[in-house]
Amino acid sequence: MKHYDFEQERIKREILRLNAKRVLIQLPEGLKPETLHIAKTIERFGALPIVSADPCYGACDLAIVEAERLNVDLLIHYGHAKLLRYERVPTIYVEARATLNVNNAVTEALPMLKNYQKIGLTTSVQHVQTLDEAKEILLHARKVVVIGDAGRLNYPGQVIGCDYSNAKSIAKDVDAFLFVGGGKFHALGVALSTSRPTVVADPYENRAYSIDKEADKIIKQRWASIEEAKRAKNFAVLVGLKPGQIKFEEALDVKKKLEGKEKAACILTTKEITPETLIAFPTIDAYVNTACPRISLDDASRFQKPVLTVNEALVVVGELSWEKLCKEGLFGN
Amino acid sequence: MKHYDFEQERIKREILRLNAKRVLIQLPEGLKPETLHIAKTIERFGALPIVSADPCYGACDLAIVEAERLNVDLLIHYGHAKLLRYERVPTIYVEARATLNVNNAVTEALPMLKNYQKIGLTTSVQHVQTLDEAKEILLHARKVVVIGDAGRLNYPGQVIGCDYSNAKSIAKDVDAFLFVGGGKFHALGVALSTSRPTVVADPYENRAYSIDKEADKIIKQRWASIEEAKRAKNFAVLVGLKPGQIKFEEALDVKKKLEGKEKAACILTTKEITPETLIAFPTIDAYVNTACPRISLDDASRFQKPVLTVNEALVVVGELSWEKLCKEGLFGN
Repeated sequence: MKHYDFEQERIKREILRLNAKRVLIQLPEGLKPETLHIAKTIERFGALPIVSADPCYGACDLAIVEAERLNVDLLIHYGHAKLLRYERVPTIYVEARATLNVNNAVTEALPMLKNYQKIGLTTSVQHVQTLDEAKEILLHARKVVVIGDAGRLNYPGQVIGCDYSNAKSIAKDVDAFLFVGGGKFHALGVALSTSRPTVVADPYENRAYSIDKEADKIIKQRWASIEEAKRAKNFAVLVGLKPGQIKFEEALDVKKKLEGKEKAACILTTKEITPETLIAFPTIDAYVNTACPRISLDDASRFQKPVLTVNEALVVVGELSWEKLCKEGLFGN
Repeated sequence: MKHYDFEQERIKREILRLNAKRVLIQLPEGLKPETLHIAKTIERFGALPIVSADPCYGACDLAIVEAERLNVDLLIHYGHAKLLRYERVPTIYVEARATLNVNNAVTEALPMLKNYQKIGLTTSVQHVQTLDEAKEILLHARKVVVIGDAGRLNYPGQVIGCDYSNAKSIAKDVDAFLFVGGGKFHALGVALSTSRPTVVADPYENRAYSIDKEADKIIKQRWASIEEAKRAKNFAVLVGLKPGQIKFEEALDVKKKLEGKEKAACILTTKEITPETLIAFPTIDAYVNTACPRISLDDASRFQKPVLTVNEALVVVGELSWEKLCKEGLFGN
């Protein structure tokens, strides 16, 4: 708990304001170990806490169905910024801002950026409040710093798992990107969506490293998956059921395009796209995933069959070239 | 497809009667390999088929949320008999009756029943139409045959994964049970809920075998799980979200009982109880599962922590004895 701001005072105020008796709590995987602690805090505020145990990787996955089924008065979603425009149940987003200092990690990144002059600065919501400090360090090292704002996300420079519009909007203007934050997940997204060298400044580990080799590996793997899918006969187009991931009309469109190329295709709907779910369909040769593109890009080695993004499926049916996909569209779902 | 009656004429009639444009199809794991075939049939009847890819082990798991989210006109649930009293979307149950002859398998079972005079006859919904034939063979072998009907399920002699009331209602009156059907799942349930010797007559493999050793193994495993849970400090009480599995008040009750014994306890809600879901909670020492009891009984080796049924939790808090649990209550959720 010590690394994050859990905004307990705001939560207490909201519970009292709504006179909330039942509160549903949704935590990303990294915060789930704090479940008992968080539940006990809510209980002290006078409400019954219920924790959603299902995987949660983004605010696209808001637990609306659970909240309605269990008749809760308030849903507290931790770790992500608001994404859906409208929530059917009273909802607060606790962004879980990190309380760590990022200066050391950013300083560690400077040698890796020595060949680049113009640096694009990006981060996850946990660290948006540190961008000014990071910028100062880069300016001090005589870099030009650019922070993108395409207007789609909540904060300038912010990226989320499936949306790199802020990075893409400035990719032409920079030589490399610096991502401030933990883990490889978001930094990989920056590298894949911009094709620019990308360095991670990780304040949890106080170190910096390049993500370019991992990004190259994924690009090669995607090529292999697309080639395998070109030879496939029977397709399933996957429709996710998470509130921010349902893309039914796109799925129908992909199905029609595949059938136009003499492929058989059916629509499969699912709550979670997992290897265990798909293994039940031995007669399907390849999948097109209209839900979260990161499942296709990051988890390929866990699946036995190709699981393409929508844009990758367009390469299979010949509507998009591999080159153009690499340049613009890996996150096109 | 050849082993089951898929009632295509009835499906066609319903689609035309409802003028259904979108149809959601829900299949148990064993029928998912037929997905493309079934989807194409529905398409020929003039509707758009959507197949639910999520695991489905019973009619308790009716895909109502999916049906509503995707705005379908008809839900076709295969492989199980109706369980919920009322469906919020037009629903038909295709029980997928097996077209196999069971005579050989039942005849194979006779030597294993030679020491028993009174035989209780049970089956899954796939084979309820064969009970008369099976009874004839047993009568011919000079057995007394009893078929239970406790009034809770759709057919006399029928069992489902979590309900053995038809078997339990006659357990006192029989020396052993014969289960007609495939696999060990239902037969194990008969053995565990009645503590009577149980033989399977499997018409898919045309062979018969005793299930008693497997049942003994599970009983021993349950004892070990309960003992481990007695030493646990932090509990989570699991609430399933499937329409026929939500037991929120029972979960609250168990939470209170655990807390009364100086255990910490919180409520976790989940769509699927899987090892992957629970592994995200390292600080929880033991779980109480108010959803499907079979997850506790059959999958114990897949979980790293004890996952008790509600009745097993009553043993932990001292409200039920192990002996009484074994006699009456393994399926008490």
